[in-house]
Amino acid sequence: MAIRKKIPVGILGATGSVGQKFVAMLANHPWFEITEVAASERSSGKKYKDAVNWILTTPLPKNIANMKVKDCKPMLKCKIAFSGLDSSIAGGVEESFAKAGYIVVSNSKNHRMDKDVPLLVPEINSDHLKLIKKQKFGKGCIVTNPNCSTIGMVLALKPLLDNFGLEKVNVVTMQALSGAGYPGVASLDTIDNVIPFICGEEDKLETEPAKIFGKLADNKIEYSRIKIGAQCNRVSVIDGHTECIQVKLKKKASIDEIKKAWNKFSGKPQKIKLPTAPLKPLHYFEEAKYPQPKIHRDIDKGMGVSIGRLRKDPLFDYKFVILSHNTVRGAAGGAILCAEMMVANNMVK
Amino acid sequence: MAIRKKIPVGILGATGSVGQKFVAMLANHPWFEITEVAASERSSGKKYKDAVNWILTTPLPKNIANMKVKDCKPMLKCKIAFSGLDSSIAGGVEESFAKAGYIVVSNSKNHRMDKDVPLLVPEINSDHLKLIKKQKFGKGCIVTNPNCSTIGMVLALKPLLDNFGLEKVNVVTMQALSGAGYPGVASLDTIDNVIPFICGEEDKLETEPAKIFGKLADNKIEYSRIKIGAQCNRVSVIDGHTECIQVKLKKKASIDEIKKAWNKFSGKPQKIKLPTAPLKPLHYFEEAKYPQPKIHRDIDKGMGVSIGRLRKDPLFDYKFVILSHNTVRGAAGGAILCAEMMVANNMVK
Amino acid sequence: MAIRKKIPVGILGATGSVGQKFVAMLANHPWFEITEVAASERSSGKKYKDAVNWILTTPLPKNIANMKVKDCKPMLKCKIAFSGLDSSIAGGVEESFAKAGYIVVSNSKNHRMDKDVPLLVPEINSDHLKLIKKQKFGKGCIVTNPNCSTIGMVLALKPLLDNFGLEKVNVVTMQALSGAGYPGVASLDTIDNVIPFICGEEDKLETEPAKIFGKLADNKIEYSRIKIGAQCNRVSVIDGHTECIQVKLKKKASIDEIKKAWNKFSGKPQKIKLPTAPLKPLHYFEEAKYPQPKIHRDIDKGMGVSIGRLRKDPLFDYKFVILSHNTVRGAAGGAILCAEMMVANNMVK
Amino acid sequence: MAIRKKIPVGILGATGSVGQKFVAMLANHPWFEITEVAASERSSGKKYKDAVNWILTTPLPKNIANMKVKDCKPMLKCKIAFSGLDSSIAGGVEESFAKAGYIVVSNSKNHRMDKDVPLLVPEINSDHLKLIKKQKFGKGCIVTNPNCSTIGMVLALKPLLDNFGLEKVNVVTMQALSGAGYPGVASLDTIDNVIPFICGEEDKLETEPAKIFGKLADNKIEYSRIKIGAQCNRVSVIDGHTECIQVKLKKKASIDEIKKAWNKFSGKPQKIKLPTAPLKPLHYFEEAKYPQPKIHRDIDKGMGVSIGRLRKDPLFDYKFVILSHNTVRGAAGGAILCAEMMVANNMVK
Repeated sequence: MAIRKKIPVGILGATGSVGQKFVAMLANHPWFEITEVAASERSSGKKYKDAVNWILTTPLPKNIANMKVKDCKPMLKCKIAFSGLDSSIAGGVEESFAKAGYIVVSNSKNHRMDKDVPLLVPEINSDHLKLIKKQKFGKGCIVTNPNCSTIGMVLALKPLLDNFGLEKVNVVTMQALSGAGYPGVASLDTIDNVIPFICGEEDKLETEPAKIFGKLADNKIEYSRIKIGAQCNRVSVIDGHTECIQVKLKKKASIDEIKKAWNKFSGKPQKIKLPTAPLKPLHYFEEAKYPQPKIHRDIDKGMGVSIGRLRKDPLFDYKFVILSHNTVRGAAGGAILCAEMMVANNMVK
Repeated sequence: MAIRKKIPVGILGATGSVGQKFVAMLANHPWFEITEVAASERSSGKKYKDAVNWILTTPLPKNIANMKVKDCKPMLKCKIAFSGLDSSIAGGVEESFAKAGYIVVSNSKNHRMDKDVPLLVPEINSDHLKLIKKQKFGKGCIVTNPNCSTIGMVLALKPLLDNFGLEKVNVVTMQALSGAGYPGVASLDTIDNVIPFICGEEDKLETEPAKIFGKLADNKIEYSRIKIGAQCNRVSVIDGHTECIQVKLKKKASIDEIKKAWNKFSGKPQKIKLPTAPLKPLHYFEEAKYPQPKIHRDIDKGMGVSIGRLRKDPLFDYKFVILSHNTVRGAAGGAILCAEMMVANNMVK
Repeated sequence: MAIRKKIPVGILGATGSVGQKFVAMLANHPWFEITEVAASERSSGKKYKDAVNWILTTPLPKNIANMKVKDCKPMLKCKIAFSGLDSSIAGGVEESFAKAGYIVVSNSKNHRMDKDVPLLVPEINSDHLKLIKKQKFGKGCIVTNPNCSTIGMVLALKPLLDNFGLEKVNVVTMQALSGAGYPGVASLDTIDNVIPFICGEEDKLETEPAKIFGKLADNKIEYSRIKIGAQCNRVSVIDGHTECIQVKLKKKASIDEIKKAWNKFSGKPQKIKLPTAPLKPLHYFEEAKYPQPKIHRDIDKGMGVSIGRLRKDPLFDYKFVILSHNTVRGAAGGAILCAEMMVANNMVK
Repeated sequence: MAIRKKIPVGILGATGSVGQKFVAMLANHPWFEITEVAASERSSGKKYKDAVNWILTTPLPKNIANMKVKDCKPMLKCKIAFSGLDSSIAGGVEESFAKAGYIVVSNSKNHRMDKDVPLLVPEINSDHLKLIKKQKFGKGCIVTNPNCSTIGMVLALKPLLDNFGLEKVNVVTMQALSGAGYPGVASLDTIDNVIPFICGEEDKLETEPAKIFGKLADNKIEYSRIKIGAQCNRVSVIDGHTECIQVKLKKKASIDEIKKAWNKFSGKPQKIKLPTAPLKPLHYFEEAKYPQPKIHRDIDKGMGVSIGRLRKDPLFDYKFVILSHNTVRGAAGGAILCAEMMVANNMVK
């Protein structure tokens, strides 16, 4: 797909940790051009490079460094507003942008479970974008990205759901520190330690998949009935959420059939070659010790999900381990892929 | 209980990581006196302080430093032989000691599932010591300690089993590096990483509890029928295994009833005040972020198990988190408690 | 030395990280009794256990847990006020307490270099306590503790100064995270990283020793003329500052003579057996790989300094490595030792 | 510069950690083509992918995976042999290859200080390649790469030497774990720890620069007389050596003059655009907290050296911090740059 002219985009919360990842991933995007960076009053008016405490290991893009930071008010010169805002304020700000005609693509939790708002994983449920018509924002709209620990899991589950049906899913996560933002977790709490609690996280993992896997009928999403149990832990890893998953399938399936289902899985983003789409959404590793966050988190530009250790389970049918990059696939990259899907669907005009 | 004269004990594999922990914990024991330290041929003949690469943060006990290291052959001057041997050689060596009349208390996996060998957690199944009569070693015998990730779990499960019955248990571990011995895991594999695989570990967690919870009848252990699913991970923690556990009970139980069952749980080692026994085997924490290995692993001299986050689970009945010190309660300390139990039972003469 | 009745003490900034260490170390002190815990308005009025986010791995002392937190105003019922206040407010608050007749023993930097205020390391310069007479606070006074990275160094240097004279000292530190307080350094900044900068730290290391080693004459301190160069780094260690030190001596000295000077070094706190004094201030290790923070920081109750690797240096005369516990010897413990010295000197009435 | 046909190269010790880095960096090299991978007898005969325990986070190159591993004997089909051999065997093996006519470019220490062997940093002393003529290996020869902690330092010192003269240099390193190879440092030794000792390292840092900065006269290297003192530490960092450096200059220089000297520094590899040369050898950062290994080690493909914190020093003239990637610039990448320099000099035929 070719784009005649780059689409102007703005980033809300551009100085935060998710905002920075948006900046890094959009700075040289083939379809989008950052025309606005917006943040809180404290930063507004400053040059971006002066307002931001850049924490990424890739350098601050030069073409963004001298941009003037604006307020998070719907007076920005752009069509799409990517939101990396903190959930304490994201709800209202995003609504105000949608009402003013912007396409808001948000990484925040606030509107995820709203009934007219797509909770989008483009490989899985891009048809949910039709929900937007029901939104009452005129030309504007809100589209959301699932929680960082949800995305990897639902991508790994989708081929199982399609091929064998899913009755129950159990998941225990070991999540990276970058998921808590910056400064986030204190170093004294994480060296030589595990924190077996992430506020609100288990609930997201237990509820978001039902919406993502839901069927669109009459412009409403009928939630899937998969039962999910989740336990979430924070471990001493910089990037990359590792998840131990158990599944009870509806139909019998052999280990080979499951691996095959994963290996051949491909979605619309792959078919139409969206710029940020991974070549393969799922990568299965045969080595017993894989996947590992340090080694596999950047697979397929950080947009692929790594899977390993598929084996029988005494309580469910199978167990396996997945890994996905929480700030790329699980945040900024996932949101950008949503926006690309909308462009491809001709929804950005 | 008072002991008239200290019982002479030897340590097999005394220079290894478990062996060192035995040395540290036995150096000033009220009942036992280390009279022998034995190790491989490479160390034999040297002074202990010269043979060992002491890795503990407590100092090498002065009264042991100059002891001469002996061969692991049954010619040691002691009654009890604590075995911290590697499983590649432990099986045969332990048998040779038992045949020669020694009481072998082993931390190795080799004889754990032998039908005449007690797999002992003194708070749970000290009656299993009667099995020893069936062993064919004359005055000698072998008693074993469960795997480091099993002990904490079975202690937390025991009051649930007794009060409400247990149908199914699901466990995902985040295990400490010290469980892999020394040098064990390479630093390049653990910084900024999780390793979702520990060879052989899941099988131990799924099978050992059935024996530990088994009923002794006709001098045979009738295995418990609890179904257990286990997934094991290595995380960047020095000491202390954290485990996310889900349980399906046979009888209904409220959160308060379960907490009460944990809080009042006490075993024979507590009753008769064995020197190494924790005052309370189980410690429940109300703070959502607890237990954490850095903070709670040393609770009750490292012999207590910390529990937290009891809450309802959509798939099982309840889920919670436990933590126990893998080289104290889960290895050397657990084995010493077994030996103390035998002394209290008048089995060491 | 025996104390007839415990001396009532208060802790300013009791909920902070240094304040917590004061609480932990004073909770069962043989001479002192915590009668007051004071903190900012946000905490004042609450029970201590509710106001504090307890971050130490030792449990919150039960006898302090229910104390009511007071304001940091000079209306506390105590004789000594230990200050763990942040330097942004410590200056004024400490003065107000001194003026009101309290003995203030402070870990903050504000008054350290005041000409009438002792910068005390009891093994080195307890005669500096005489300076107090010149303070204009009536019955009250202020005594300070050096910076956490200074204390270990000056203790290791003192025997060299006394025996061989010191011309130049060069030091490069690798400092622990706990030195930055809590939450302090973000975990994303420290895992797999070194931060080669600690604001203001190098200046303290370069200037404080001159005062500590200064001679008291006519109730004034004549600064020592040792030239010191310092470079400070933050590394991924929880507790314990490691320092690479080079020295140029005034007199020739052999390696053996230096080791001997260190080994026989003992100060007044050792002689009169102050409760918090280490048995030996300095511990030399012959192993090339020692000292190491994980292994040696708690030596002698965390009050001892570990030294190792003494060897010739091409640019100076000798180089060596020291290690000391930054929150014990370098903060709360050091300050408590100062107060004990004052009690022994009959300065607390 | 264009190459008509790729030059066949072999890698000695191809399965080790340095060997793997050679494989990764040479797999798609514009001038060189890996035609042979050689290792110890244990690996020889196997496919490379089966013989190697691949530890890099970049994937094992597909075009190398199925190559058959050969013995480290001079019967390989290649012109250049890159040696990542362990120093316990490198000396003899490298000689045997040179004698057989191979160009050996070695990362091992064995021949570094041999008087006919260039110790090469192409930006600094590419004229030392003339020494090769004096070697007695016929068409073959040996060229070496300095120690990983030396390279970054000499690159940062070179413009100071050229512009202001250097009298004394003092350096304290905080070195990454990857410098110890794999498995290298045990995780139990590095979490929450610093190891203030690296065997043999300080001697290399104190002696190698004198040769590197030496003048070639009469086909002999006249060693530079800079006096260097070094102290080396291992810290919990995966890649990237951080070094605190102090310098005494021969001529006065202002901070601005020094920064300018660094910023304009460029060598022959930059001029002739060698494929692996960094665009700029030195990158100065104004932020006080920079450079940091996690952020800057990969600068300029891992071949650039980061510098920061230039400031006056009380004992020397100036102090500053440098950082360079120990396995890229400090090992495989540095050696490859040496080979490229030889190709450009028409020494590979």
